[in-house]
Amino acid sequence: MNKEETFEQFTEKLEEIFHLRSAIAVLSWDQEVFMPQKGIESRAKTISNLSGFLHQKFTSSDFEKTILKVKKFYDKKILADEEACIFKEVWRDFEREKKLPLSFVKELSRVCSEGQNIWAKAKEKSDFKIFLPSLKKIIELKRKEAQLVGYNKNPYDAMLDIYEPYATTEEVSLVFDELKKFLLPFLRKIKKSKVKISSEKLNGKFPLKKQIEFNKFIAEKLGFDFEAGRLDESVHPFSTSFNPMDVRMTTRYSEKNLISSIMGTIHESGHSIYEQGLSADKFGTPLGESISTGIHESQSRIWENMVGRSKFFWKFFYPILQKKFPDPFGKISFDSFYRAINKVESDFIRIEADEITYNLHIIIRFEIEKELLDGSIQAEDLPKIWNDKMKEYFGLKVPNDALGVLQDVHWSGGNIGYFPTYVLGNLYSAQLFEASKKDILNLEEKISAGQFGHFKEWLRKNIHVHGKMYSAGELIEKVTGEKLSSQYFINYIKEKYSKIYKI
Amino acid sequence: MNKEETFEQFTEKLEEIFHLRSAIAVLSWDQEVFMPQKGIESRAKTISNLSGFLHQKFTSSDFEKTILKVKKFYDKKILADEEACIFKEVWRDFEREKKLPLSFVKELSRVCSEGQNIWAKAKEKSDFKIFLPSLKKIIELKRKEAQLVGYNKNPYDAMLDIYEPYATTEEVSLVFDELKKFLLPFLRKIKKSKVKISSEKLNGKFPLKKQIEFNKFIAEKLGFDFEAGRLDESVHPFSTSFNPMDVRMTTRYSEKNLISSIMGTIHESGHSIYEQGLSADKFGTPLGESISTGIHESQSRIWENMVGRSKFFWKFFYPILQKKFPDPFGKISFDSFYRAINKVESDFIRIEADEITYNLHIIIRFEIEKELLDGSIQAEDLPKIWNDKMKEYFGLKVPNDALGVLQDVHWSGGNIGYFPTYVLGNLYSAQLFEASKKDILNLEEKISAGQFGHFKEWLRKNIHVHGKMYSAGELIEKVTGEKLSSQYFINYIKEKYSKIYKI
Repeated sequence: MNKEETFEQFTEKLEEIFHLRSAIAVLSWDQEVFMPQKGIESRAKTISNLSGFLHQKFTSSDFEKTILKVKKFYDKKILADEEACIFKEVWRDFEREKKLPLSFVKELSRVCSEGQNIWAKAKEKSDFKIFLPSLKKIIELKRKEAQLVGYNKNPYDAMLDIYEPYATTEEVSLVFDELKKFLLPFLRKIKKSKVKISSEKLNGKFPLKKQIEFNKFIAEKLGFDFEAGRLDESVHPFSTSFNPMDVRMTTRYSEKNLISSIMGTIHESGHSIYEQGLSADKFGTPLGESISTGIHESQSRIWENMVGRSKFFWKFFYPILQKKFPDPFGKISFDSFYRAINKVESDFIRIEADEITYNLHIIIRFEIEKELLDGSIQAEDLPKIWNDKMKEYFGLKVPNDALGVLQDVHWSGGNIGYFPTYVLGNLYSAQLFEASKKDILNLEEKISAGQFGHFKEWLRKNIHVHGKMYSAGELIEKVTGEKLSSQYFINYIKEKYSKIYKI
Repeated sequence: MNKEETFEQFTEKLEEIFHLRSAIAVLSWDQEVFMPQKGIESRAKTISNLSGFLHQKFTSSDFEKTILKVKKFYDKKILADEEACIFKEVWRDFEREKKLPLSFVKELSRVCSEGQNIWAKAKEKSDFKIFLPSLKKIIELKRKEAQLVGYNKNPYDAMLDIYEPYATTEEVSLVFDELKKFLLPFLRKIKKSKVKISSEKLNGKFPLKKQIEFNKFIAEKLGFDFEAGRLDESVHPFSTSFNPMDVRMTTRYSEKNLISSIMGTIHESGHSIYEQGLSADKFGTPLGESISTGIHESQSRIWENMVGRSKFFWKFFYPILQKKFPDPFGKISFDSFYRAINKVESDFIRIEADEITYNLHIIIRFEIEKELLDGSIQAEDLPKIWNDKMKEYFGLKVPNDALGVLQDVHWSGGNIGYFPTYVLGNLYSAQLFEASKKDILNLEEKISAGQFGHFKEWLRKNIHVHGKMYSAGELIEKVTGEKLSSQYFINYIKEKYSKIYKI
């Protein structure tokens, strides 16, 4: 077979694999959104069956034969740029999968599946000791995974690589340290500020139907295409994509808190507009896939925070909100509303933390994960380490494990290396937003006037359509002219919150 | 491997296949109920990919090896009854699949997929000639299919067998002829009756939300378990099951016609209660599957017609309906309502036809299909044959092909042999209902009092839990003490409609 035929065979097989992933995504979406209670057990089996097929397909000798044929062309450097990218990215996954023996994969999956149940019980009883044996086993397996797949300097590199391909522990530590150096004293200043903000006044009684309508209205305004997607309700807001023509997102509704559903919708719209912006004709190849978890998060954060918590955004939406929900917003001034949605508060819990403290929550987790992986700390010491850091960073005394080290599900599912992508998302989003302001004349005024199209198109053209053509680092450099830096985010926070808290 | 080990391996492989089917069912359900418009093309590809895997799995040499091992135990007659049934039913499908060469299956699938598009155009233009070449090709392929899979007396047996396993053309013709002999003169009597019924008065203005609530209330009362299923909305009402713990049904809502949504819900509840009544622990084997399309239809018809169009049913529900929707039902007497929902009317269209004429619509199709298959009539003559039969049975002059021979999608999709199961469903339902009345003391009074549990449990115990343990014919004989007969349905119709139309 010549190069063209070989490559076509390769992409056909890839497409089959992507359709299986798509099917799993539909089943998982339904599970979270519409599935009746008694369906849980069977659905888990159906999904695990499909995941098994997926693994079989990807690691079959048939697929291996094909990818090795393509590798020959790649090694001879005769693939076109896009073809080379497709091969390179699939090969990355294929190699990783090949390095992990099936027995290891099964054990990890079993331990993590048990781990999540045990963690839930431990959290309920607020007792870390219940979870400790599982956690130790998980860390041991993840360290083994790092050995099996290999790494350059730091075993944690092998964890990061799953979510943020090509990122290194060294680089990430560098930007996180800079960020921490700024955030800690800045947060102390905010605490000492005389400005005290209450967000209680935003509460009210909001009928579900009206909330749904308003959330859909916002998502549509931002550019989410309802002919190629849906907005539904689930316990935790999330987004998932079956393909760029069918992207599903959810938010969470509470009768008394409208703003939380709106922030959920804006955040998920960011993720979903990214997925809708991928090239449908590249479906089935890495060129039709998002770059990394961090870049994905940058798209949700850029809409939720840079845009959705800004004055210019609410200049357009607040009068509409006041009209639709005169109680309570009719009696709340624009400035008071703006301050309330940007309240900074040191709290024990990461989820729904504000723009500033969120990063510190993540940095604690990152520092811990890194040292767990290289063995410089041990799992049994986690509650103490956690609580010491909470004291140091937030000045808070953690009252119990449920509000401390047990609060997040991630570790129990083996998802070590995921946390840092939340902060990377924030850093990327600030750096990208600065670049967009240079490219789009009067961007903030445009948004104030309800014109979101320019910004959406800028994101699409500069980020979405490329799929995995560039790594996160390459993309940031290509779009912003420099490497990832924490400085943009620091400047953004400094400027915005100095004004709000008059410091 | 001993018998136990072999059989376990066999059922494990079967379960894998069933999970794939389950996944396809979820994807198809979502497609009809919630999928955004632009997702159509990709979803079709995802489903066709999964169907491909399913076919591969079922016809793989790996599966063949296993089933042949089981066959040895079966041939030696050392399988337990349930095991023997599992083997026998899977072997039926396996043999049929093996007899059809892949090239044939692909061609049939291609021709039918094109056929449906061409049929839709032909129907829109009301021009049979547009559809004729497709239809000829489809009939040719279905005749070839009959040759490939083999049959005893009549090539149409091989078609029936897909939907109504073990049924023969001869048997079906016999009961249908009896039925026709009764229905034709009876329908003429109704037409001549002085009783004229109008159903216009049932129309009104019914808010969607209230309709949904009322439909859910009815479904729940009948015994549909909402913790193991859902009721949603779609263009055409349907039911589908992922497993007995997750059964999804839909109905259709129109603002002005509440009764049509209710009848849809009752019909689909019948199908869904059957699926929920299958044994969850037999999932993955024929013992956890419904018997046949006809028996399935009997479950929807027994609820929709025997129960849902009866006086005793509405004795309970009508006062509630009147209270919830005083306009118009407050001003309609019980008897007038009962007559309106049982109006008999000769019309061109099968869908939503009444209990009497529905059967004649089907008998026309059955007679045509049978003769198309054995070659005694030709596709080009269909409009004339159709219109002649409509004249003969209904006294109607068909004005155009769209209202005549082109009205149904079935043939264009290759589903020849499906139609008769609708009438078989009616016949089974009447015979089963009579048996249930013998077993359950004062059944009609119980239902009048809103007690549906006894009837549901009777169906469950006598029909649902058995899965495919008995063929349709065996089950009817086991439960009612005699072979399928059209007499029960004839008696039911005669008694009910003689009163309504005073004949």
